[in-house]
Amino acid sequence: MATSLGIRGAFFDFIDDPWRHVGREYEAARFLADGLLVVEDGKITDFGDHGDVSRRHRALDVTHIRDRLIMPGFIDGHIHFPQTRVIGAFGEQLLPWLQRWIFPEELKYQDRDYARGAARRFFDNLLASGTTTAQAFTTSSPVATEELFDEATRRNMRLIAGLTGIDRLAPAEYMRSADLFYADSKQLIARYHRQGRNLYAITPRFALGATEALLAACQRLKQEHPDCWVNTHISEDRAEVREVREVHPGCADYLAIYEKYGLTGPRFTGGHGVWLSDDEFHRLAASGSAISFCPCANLFLGAGLFRLGRATDPRSRVRLSWGTDVGGGNRFSMLGVLDEAYKVGMCNASALEGHPDEAARNKVSPYRGFWSITLGGAEGLYIDHLVGNFTPGKEADFVVLDWNGGPSHQAWRQSLMADEAGPRTMEQAADLLFGIMMVGDDRAVDETWVMGQQLYKKG
Amino acid sequence: MATSLGIRGAFFDFIDDPWRHVGREYEAARFLADGLLVVEDGKITDFGDHGDVSRRHRALDVTHIRDRLIMPGFIDGHIHFPQTRVIGAFGEQLLPWLQRWIFPEELKYQDRDYARGAARRFFDNLLASGTTTAQAFTTSSPVATEELFDEATRRNMRLIAGLTGIDRLAPAEYMRSADLFYADSKQLIARYHRQGRNLYAITPRFALGATEALLAACQRLKQEHPDCWVNTHISEDRAEVREVREVHPGCADYLAIYEKYGLTGPRFTGGHGVWLSDDEFHRLAASGSAISFCPCANLFLGAGLFRLGRATDPRSRVRLSWGTDVGGGNRFSMLGVLDEAYKVGMCNASALEGHPDEAARNKVSPYRGFWSITLGGAEGLYIDHLVGNFTPGKEADFVVLDWNGGPSHQAWRQSLMADEAGPRTMEQAADLLFGIMMVGDDRAVDETWVMGQQLYKKG
Repeated sequence: MATSLGIRGAFFDFIDDPWRHVGREYEAARFLADGLLVVEDGKITDFGDHGDVSRRHRALDVTHIRDRLIMPGFIDGHIHFPQTRVIGAFGEQLLPWLQRWIFPEELKYQDRDYARGAARRFFDNLLASGTTTAQAFTTSSPVATEELFDEATRRNMRLIAGLTGIDRLAPAEYMRSADLFYADSKQLIARYHRQGRNLYAITPRFALGATEALLAACQRLKQEHPDCWVNTHISEDRAEVREVREVHPGCADYLAIYEKYGLTGPRFTGGHGVWLSDDEFHRLAASGSAISFCPCANLFLGAGLFRLGRATDPRSRVRLSWGTDVGGGNRFSMLGVLDEAYKVGMCNASALEGHPDEAARNKVSPYRGFWSITLGGAEGLYIDHLVGNFTPGKEADFVVLDWNGGPSHQAWRQSLMADEAGPRTMEQAADLLFGIMMVGDDRAVDETWVMGQQLYKKG
Repeated sequence: MATSLGIRGAFFDFIDDPWRHVGREYEAARFLADGLLVVEDGKITDFGDHGDVSRRHRALDVTHIRDRLIMPGFIDGHIHFPQTRVIGAFGEQLLPWLQRWIFPEELKYQDRDYARGAARRFFDNLLASGTTTAQAFTTSSPVATEELFDEATRRNMRLIAGLTGIDRLAPAEYMRSADLFYADSKQLIARYHRQGRNLYAITPRFALGATEALLAACQRLKQEHPDCWVNTHISEDRAEVREVREVHPGCADYLAIYEKYGLTGPRFTGGHGVWLSDDEFHRLAASGSAISFCPCANLFLGAGLFRLGRATDPRSRVRLSWGTDVGGGNRFSMLGVLDEAYKVGMCNASALEGHPDEAARNKVSPYRGFWSITLGGAEGLYIDHLVGNFTPGKEADFVVLDWNGGPSHQAWRQSLMADEAGPRTMEQAADLLFGIMMVGDDRAVDETWVMGQQLYKKG
């Protein structure tokens, strides 16, 4: 017998991309001041105004969540599971930072107990941040990938991940040969891909850490498993971009390396893309490839300002997910990502005085921001048929937001936007959401639900 | 009879500028794993290792604070009291943001009840952030200035503030004539300057909002009260810099306007300085004038990246305070300022590949960061004889930091830097402090003490 439940409260989600509704972004959103979500066996079966929906489900067991905004669970498109502990490590740009802080920590994940404990912490932190879906890097050792998928399975959380391949530029004990990477990946794909909510991503760490042999192994995996995802990094840092050209001299630019090995296209994500050329943006758009925008990390490592207004050009729109990039990013919370995304956008906008359209596309309104970490992120990862909003048929992952959660000054700020009874209009709700993203933090996350089950409640 | 107390715990403060100790920044700091601070009538009378100091004060009533780092109270060099509620307001660069969000809110402070309630909230928020001293803007109405000083007096907190003058570019009901500004300022100086811990700043809001008459009134005030402070804005935003040249056509650059009216020199602070020329930096250094670096606001309003490595050039070192710039800055906490300052510095450093010295000066280590919001801020404001570290004779303002305070992932991160017993070396303490500034937030502030009295304890 199916288990059914109803969630009543104020709901905010998206039905379209706000960048397609310039000046009328509210057309892309959906706000129900008093809504009802019906969940059966973890999936949404009905959604709408409480008055309408409740008439169709008279015997429903309803949980009424008051004084909160209920949104789809947040989607983190780019995060490094084995960097959980080394978040916020001092003082280096990308390449020396990897050597000094990251590889030594990731090596610990060859130990199964360490990896298992870390996986528990990782998901605890995601849930406390309102994140219900992540696309994650692991390490070069299968142990970390296994423990990550196993923990996701126990929590029934949707996860995209894969063994992370690297065969140059890392300590010897960290690197794996292309052959071993291929063999381990095959086993992991057979064991985890599409088992429960798990999805497998073929994961070359980045082209700078890959020989031709490793990329050829990725190509073969993709040919043999065309419905797998591909997850990697691209054009993050100036020094990296310069060096990658020397390692792969036949390729005209960074993207061309991944194109050469047939890795781009739907379900491909390249993290960062700070230094992509206009031509690379065009080719990404044309092939249906995605970039994951990670502003916390781009600022923390000083990589630079992602050209958000260029990526969202309607003539050549690139799919995006947004990511924390823990531990290059210093926040686990996607709300922290929205904070920094807004700032990157404003800095870009100010520098684009002669280009008003691109400048305006850089402004991360609450509509654009929250779309990007819900439905937009799902589109970027090609999982929008599964998650991202409250449309019936999708999985019931959602987050319950307390708009006053955050520092001591937040409640008075929010009282300027809506009175204590909460938002009555979409505009009021959006004003509160902007406060959550710019003044609030993880304290705004009051509850996190996965497949219709409450897995986190703020203590 | 004098009231005496002792505070025992782990102390971290500074005795010099870490930028003067490149490669050996620890020389500028002081860490006592087990220290004792002796306070009499609100002032520090003794400080050192517990073993030594306790022998000199045998009958002392000692509070032992365990598992915490005790630092001098934070100093916010640039904050707008009447923008407390409108923090994090969406979507505009500086000039339209002032018109749309700021002036309407500041106008409410003509009402004494509103201003009084807001002053209570303002100091509550400062204390919850660990900030014990602020240099604050008020509004054009004396009511806000009076209420701010009165509340500071009730809490015995050191405050630099002054009536904020503006006679162009604001709504008519907000502006005041130069004559009225002069007369009101005279009254306020007489009533508040050097009364208790209050210090008065002659405060033209910014040159763009000032006619020649208003700046001449400021000049006259400064001549008549040469020991007053001067607080204003300078070179924040590209559009502002362009327009100010049209309003004051006789001046070669932004700084020249303030120079023309005799306002620069010791105790002058210009907020922001994002677009200062090299020549302006030289003249600021030569005259002993200070800039307040406000990275949260510079990013939030998209103004740009302050050239920190230029300002700290030893050949022409400019005094700095660092500020939140609430509400242009979206964090009340100086820890949030350190987060964004680090990121601005890293972005600058990456863009300065051919200039390794300037690039390196942009790196905000925990030493540089925490010096800047304690002793460095005090030097920038010319109050380092009063506050900023634990040197006997200074006022006993301090903050008690919980290095694990913050999001759920902080404690495991910090366990990489020191075990549960806490830091035993300065290096361990500095590693924890970097975690506090980049991963922690106001939740790291466990207690805030002013003049030897605990005024805040985390709930």
